[in-house]
Amino acid sequence: MTKFSVLILGSASASPTLNRNPTSQLLNINEQYYLIDCGEGTQSKLREHKVKFQRLHHIFISHLHGDHYLGLIGLLQTMHLLGRTIDLHLYGPPQLKEIIDLHLKYSYSALRYPLIFHPTQAVQSEIIFENNQIEVSTIILKHRIPCTGFLFKEKSKPRVINPDAIKLHCVPKHAINKLKNGEDYIVFDTKKVIKNEVLTLKPAKSRSYAFCSDTKYCESIIPQITNVDLLYHEATFMQSEEKRAKETYHSTAEQAAQVALKAKAKSLIIGHFSNRYLKLDNLLNEARFVFKNTELALENSVFEIKETQ
Amino acid sequence: MTKFSVLILGSASASPTLNRNPTSQLLNINEQYYLIDCGEGTQSKLREHKVKFQRLHHIFISHLHGDHYLGLIGLLQTMHLLGRTIDLHLYGPPQLKEIIDLHLKYSYSALRYPLIFHPTQAVQSEIIFENNQIEVSTIILKHRIPCTGFLFKEKSKPRVINPDAIKLHCVPKHAINKLKNGEDYIVFDTKKVIKNEVLTLKPAKSRSYAFCSDTKYCESIIPQITNVDLLYHEATFMQSEEKRAKETYHSTAEQAAQVALKAKAKSLIIGHFSNRYLKLDNLLNEARFVFKNTELALENSVFEIKETQ
Repeated sequence: MTKFSVLILGSASASPTLNRNPTSQLLNINEQYYLIDCGEGTQSKLREHKVKFQRLHHIFISHLHGDHYLGLIGLLQTMHLLGRTIDLHLYGPPQLKEIIDLHLKYSYSALRYPLIFHPTQAVQSEIIFENNQIEVSTIILKHRIPCTGFLFKEKSKPRVINPDAIKLHCVPKHAINKLKNGEDYIVFDTKKVIKNEVLTLKPAKSRSYAFCSDTKYCESIIPQITNVDLLYHEATFMQSEEKRAKETYHSTAEQAAQVALKAKAKSLIIGHFSNRYLKLDNLLNEARFVFKNTELALENSVFEIKETQ
Repeated sequence: MTKFSVLILGSASASPTLNRNPTSQLLNINEQYYLIDCGEGTQSKLREHKVKFQRLHHIFISHLHGDHYLGLIGLLQTMHLLGRTIDLHLYGPPQLKEIIDLHLKYSYSALRYPLIFHPTQAVQSEIIFENNQIEVSTIILKHRIPCTGFLFKEKSKPRVINPDAIKLHCVPKHAINKLKNGEDYIVFDTKKVIKNEVLTLKPAKSRSYAFCSDTKYCESIIPQITNVDLLYHEATFMQSEEKRAKETYHSTAEQAAQVALKAKAKSLIIGHFSNRYLKLDNLLNEARFVFKNTELALENSVFEIKETQ
């Protein structure tokens, strides 16, 4: 059973409050970490959760509003001071590089590890990272400045070998990998075909997480996130503030739930709460009225996507 | 009795730890606030202490290492979002303005309040702020990049009217201000001179606070800070790490104490502790061995300078 979980490090919108930090989330996919957004205070939150900075290799920044990236420069500096030498991959708007370079220039510093910058563009969705397990693509959001969400998707998993069937049919070791890839087994001397499904079991389903940070209500993202297992969607305001949400290119809790509903998401978490809301029950209820399986993406919460067949 | 106190918001050096924030201090002089340095997390610490951001009018940044200013952009943004319209005066290295402007440019924002920037230079000490109560001058420190400390000094206070003596000598109201300024009183018809000290009492002494952030051991600052009431001096390392301190342009606890001793400071607080020190007792003891009246400038501590005659 491999892990696929989201740890919430910050749930506040632009103005942090005493209990709510600006946006940041730590994704754990099979013990590989992916940091999404990095508001002020993220390095402290990571320490609080005893996350070793050495284990961070990929950081994704959605857009250049301060509450989504102002903790990044400090985190990069701390990694440098801790003696990091391994690569760090950073994905974000092209101008982020210019900002980092200016900070480094005036602190007379050069990072002693390679910072590999991958500029994103907010025009059309593209795959910005993949390895043998997952694929990350941008989600084009509608915010006041260029802004992308990120869709993390597990790749199709190999079929699972059925050890009893393998034994029964005397399948040799060298044929195993082909079986995992879905091929049938052909007995060497008789040329008899044994169907793959006789020898293997269905693999676990590929899981997916969609991070939709700052955006106004936007149906154009729905095809891309249809059937997503877990959707994070910002919900800065209540529906009573719909006008304000539209003006500021943000969403209401109801709108976030509408997106989840239309995308047939399995579950929804909402965050980026305006500091006008001291209690969040009403936001949650408003979303749940439209999309039942909703939770608040509060600091220190962990949302796990279980493996299913 | 007017207030003169320093609230410590951060005591860590470059890498914050779970319990120690990067450098920031809030000076309260007669209920006027002065923020000195603004490491990441400063706005949260200010909220923790229920400091109203509207009451901040002057922010002083010593130098452009991240642990001394990375909380500034977020604080400026929050002030904007809270609807600030009143002036904010910012004092710091000239390049700080360029950094702020770049962040604002890429967040497509303009602050809705005037941010009045006062560039400092780290060549020779100069007065960078004064009002009718205090005067702030830069202290030229020796760090890896241009860096200034700040000396906050109360101006001479007016002499205190002795109400009994005023009554006895029938001094009219219009003469009071001249008495406060130290002038003698001349009786209108007889031309008799009544000495000022007969009619007034000595004012309280002017108090002073010297903030010496990142610097290697540096005796050249001593004439400027001689007899200071309270000296904050960085003490990143123990004396056993003297070589490392010198290489990184930092000070040891013993060196901070030597500066306090030679400057005849009344008391010393030390901070900017390397994260290698989990307990700080040894740093404190080392400083106290040289300069007894030393305390640790720990988060949430308040150091008050009492008024004396």
